[in-house]
Amino acid sequence: MTQKVKIGKLAMLLASLSSEELETFHPSLEEVQYCQGKAGSMDVQKVIAAVETAAKRNHIISQEVYRETHALYHAILEALQGVTRGQIGVGNMMRTVGLRFSVVRGRPYEKEEEGEWVAVAFYGTIGAPVKGLEHETFGLGINHI
Amino acid sequence: MTQKVKIGKLAMLLASLSSEELETFHPSLEEVQYCQGKAGSMDVQKVIAAVETAAKRNHIISQEVYRETHALYHAILEALQGVTRGQIGVGNMMRTVGLRFSVVRGRPYEKEEEGEWVAVAFYGTIGAPVKGLEHETFGLGINHI
Amino acid sequence: MTQKVKIGKLAMLLASLSSEELETFHPSLEEVQYCQGKAGSMDVQKVIAAVETAAKRNHIISQEVYRETHALYHAILEALQGVTRGQIGVGNMMRTVGLRFSVVRGRPYEKEEEGEWVAVAFYGTIGAPVKGLEHETFGLGINHI
Amino acid sequence: MTQKVKIGKLAMLLASLSSEELETFHPSLEEVQYCQGKAGSMDVQKVIAAVETAAKRNHIISQEVYRETHALYHAILEALQGVTRGQIGVGNMMRTVGLRFSVVRGRPYEKEEEGEWVAVAFYGTIGAPVKGLEHETFGLGINHI
Amino acid sequence: MTQKVKIGKLAMLLASLSSEELETFHPSLEEVQYCQGKAGSMDVQKVIAAVETAAKRNHIISQEVYRETHALYHAILEALQGVTRGQIGVGNMMRTVGLRFSVVRGRPYEKEEEGEWVAVAFYGTIGAPVKGLEHETFGLGINHI
Amino acid sequence: MTQKVKIGKLAMLLASLSSEELETFHPSLEEVQYCQGKAGSMDVQKVIAAVETAAKRNHIISQEVYRETHALYHAILEALQGVTRGQIGVGNMMRTVGLRFSVVRGRPYEKEEEGEWVAVAFYGTIGAPVKGLEHETFGLGINHI
Repeated sequence: MTQKVKIGKLAMLLASLSSEELETFHPSLEEVQYCQGKAGSMDVQKVIAAVETAAKRNHIISQEVYRETHALYHAILEALQGVTRGQIGVGNMMRTVGLRFSVVRGRPYEKEEEGEWVAVAFYGTIGAPVKGLEHETFGLGINHI
Repeated sequence: MTQKVKIGKLAMLLASLSSEELETFHPSLEEVQYCQGKAGSMDVQKVIAAVETAAKRNHIISQEVYRETHALYHAILEALQGVTRGQIGVGNMMRTVGLRFSVVRGRPYEKEEEGEWVAVAFYGTIGAPVKGLEHETFGLGINHI
Repeated sequence: MTQKVKIGKLAMLLASLSSEELETFHPSLEEVQYCQGKAGSMDVQKVIAAVETAAKRNHIISQEVYRETHALYHAILEALQGVTRGQIGVGNMMRTVGLRFSVVRGRPYEKEEEGEWVAVAFYGTIGAPVKGLEHETFGLGINHI
Repeated sequence: MTQKVKIGKLAMLLASLSSEELETFHPSLEEVQYCQGKAGSMDVQKVIAAVETAAKRNHIISQEVYRETHALYHAILEALQGVTRGQIGVGNMMRTVGLRFSVVRGRPYEKEEEGEWVAVAFYGTIGAPVKGLEHETFGLGINHI
Repeated sequence: MTQKVKIGKLAMLLASLSSEELETFHPSLEEVQYCQGKAGSMDVQKVIAAVETAAKRNHIISQEVYRETHALYHAILEALQGVTRGQIGVGNMMRTVGLRFSVVRGRPYEKEEEGEWVAVAFYGTIGAPVKGLEHETFGLGINHI
Repeated sequence: MTQKVKIGKLAMLLASLSSEELETFHPSLEEVQYCQGKAGSMDVQKVIAAVETAAKRNHIISQEVYRETHALYHAILEALQGVTRGQIGVGNMMRTVGLRFSVVRGRPYEKEEEGEWVAVAFYGTIGAPVKGLEHETFGLGINHI
């Protein structure tokens, strides 16, 4: 791969590694902006809102510019496709404990004109609303910003 | 999370970390069976065949028992939903350089009766058939076996 | 077809034939476990819950083991794809009178190792929430358990 | 259900019962037009063509009128959603032995103005291109004609 | 194109042109029945209800005959696929200001037997529930009636 | 709507109006860059290629910068969702005579920071590969660039 900064892989590590693992691994995060968060429900709307709020509060995207919200929104939707495996609409019938997410913004390409991109990753469990009746799930979405 | 072995996370790390990173990280792989491989085309059928062949050749699943093929097949499809973000059918119009995958089989749950599960992860790039015109993509699928 | 017990066809007959028709037809049900039920709403979550509850109360699947719930859940989702014809997410906007379902668990294959599988079938009407403004609908899902 | 002729159920029985079973069951077929056929490939285009050809050759629909082809086409697509469980586009990567289909045309409703409707049903096996590595599948589509 | 009356294009113009533009353009509407309306929410159910109500109140379709409701319903769903671009189920998480719609019923084909068809078009904005954070969206669905 | 330049509506008009109609209507195109073209097959890959080629040859997007290709690509996919009404993967089984498309690039928003956006529109007929056995279809996709 020719990308100098793999924002997708960084987002995946930030969403799925524990603090201790991240310390061991210490991925290089100097060149990107990022935030992490949690979403404890599989109400798709709430999950989207949680990511948008975190990204805005941490100044990963600008609250004032629609194109940034638009870019992030589609990256979230793409990541949720991975989480729900093609059935976003069904999402609201399952509950999730411990869905973590991350948003990473950076310049993955050497070429200046490629500009900034955003990656959104989710990692956690999906399943019946009973502790233990669940399995892991993951999703990654990427968009130009 | 109450799972003692996170086969999904293991699969993700095996698919996306380089050999050096895996050495640094040395995730505990004693309790699982796993294999890694590459698939260099986005012809969905070829990708599925590559994973199935690798899993059978490495004795992750039994070639003789349909239920194991069936379990793996649906885990692959779910992982491809993440890769193609809900548009498996469109997959054949994009080309990919360097899609790596992993298959992990193990017992994620403490409870004996939960038995074995399989995780499939993909990591690589998706994009136009021109080097550089691509971005990262990820997918994870999990099923009981 | 080489399957000795066609659990899918049995599920279909159990969901769609009337008691009189079933008596005439008397499909051989000795080798399988099964239950029947009704779901009177197209709220997808309620339909899923109705099938899960019936399957657990009739001991078709074990309430204690997540992998059985997981297997049944995906069989239900597949059957609902047939009922809603690819638009599960839209399901909640239509109402249904007389949706009947069945769950059949058995060993469809001669080979011992293939083990048990589960089939879920739905049959009924789908349409506007006005009696008569509706047409028939059917769905079948099958999974290893 | 208030429908006097259940064309969907008739289509399902015609697609899934053996000749002996149909004789035992002898569903009342006087009021409908119908045909049966087989499609031995999961190339979605070929399956559609097989059903269309059978329906036209048996004069279930008129070859001259587009609206009849249009009605049948969408009923086939809906039935295929059940067969492929929401992933028509993936269909071409699996092979099927013994997919049988039926087309039934009739007047399901008491009311004269409701006119004619068409039902398409598929029943068979879906799976890997190896005999035995497959399970049952079903699909039903209905449309006004 | 051989169609004498392009009901889809008429529906598109009726949904997207302003009154002044329609006057300038004065598309020929003598041969069709049509109505226009607005739907101010992206709750999919409410949008469908708004179109159905408008079409019935303006006598574009008959309230008494299910096949007309059925034809319109599927035309609306197809149009909404364009509006939501394949994610009808997600629709309920976005809000829309100024979604206009039109329903056009007519005989697009020269051939008498092709009978009547219905076209549904939507045009407006889709986006976050904040004024300005939105972009245009459009959808067209067509069905025989 | 608060958008000063409705690139989506412009794209729709450019794709669907005849030259005479466009002259009557003379939409204001000074502030945008645009191109028009035709795609005579429903092989999804060829349609995408036709639009990309036209957009690059007419300098609507830069051939050198991946983010522009990426933005256009997703706008095309969204527009094709409208054309195929949610079944892009099935697209390859239908043929189309006279599918016209347009690509419009401009600044729809008053706010400078919102920058440039791209709209893709398709209009034409979709149907069986027999002249006349077809109906109109439309699709619109919009993305920030």
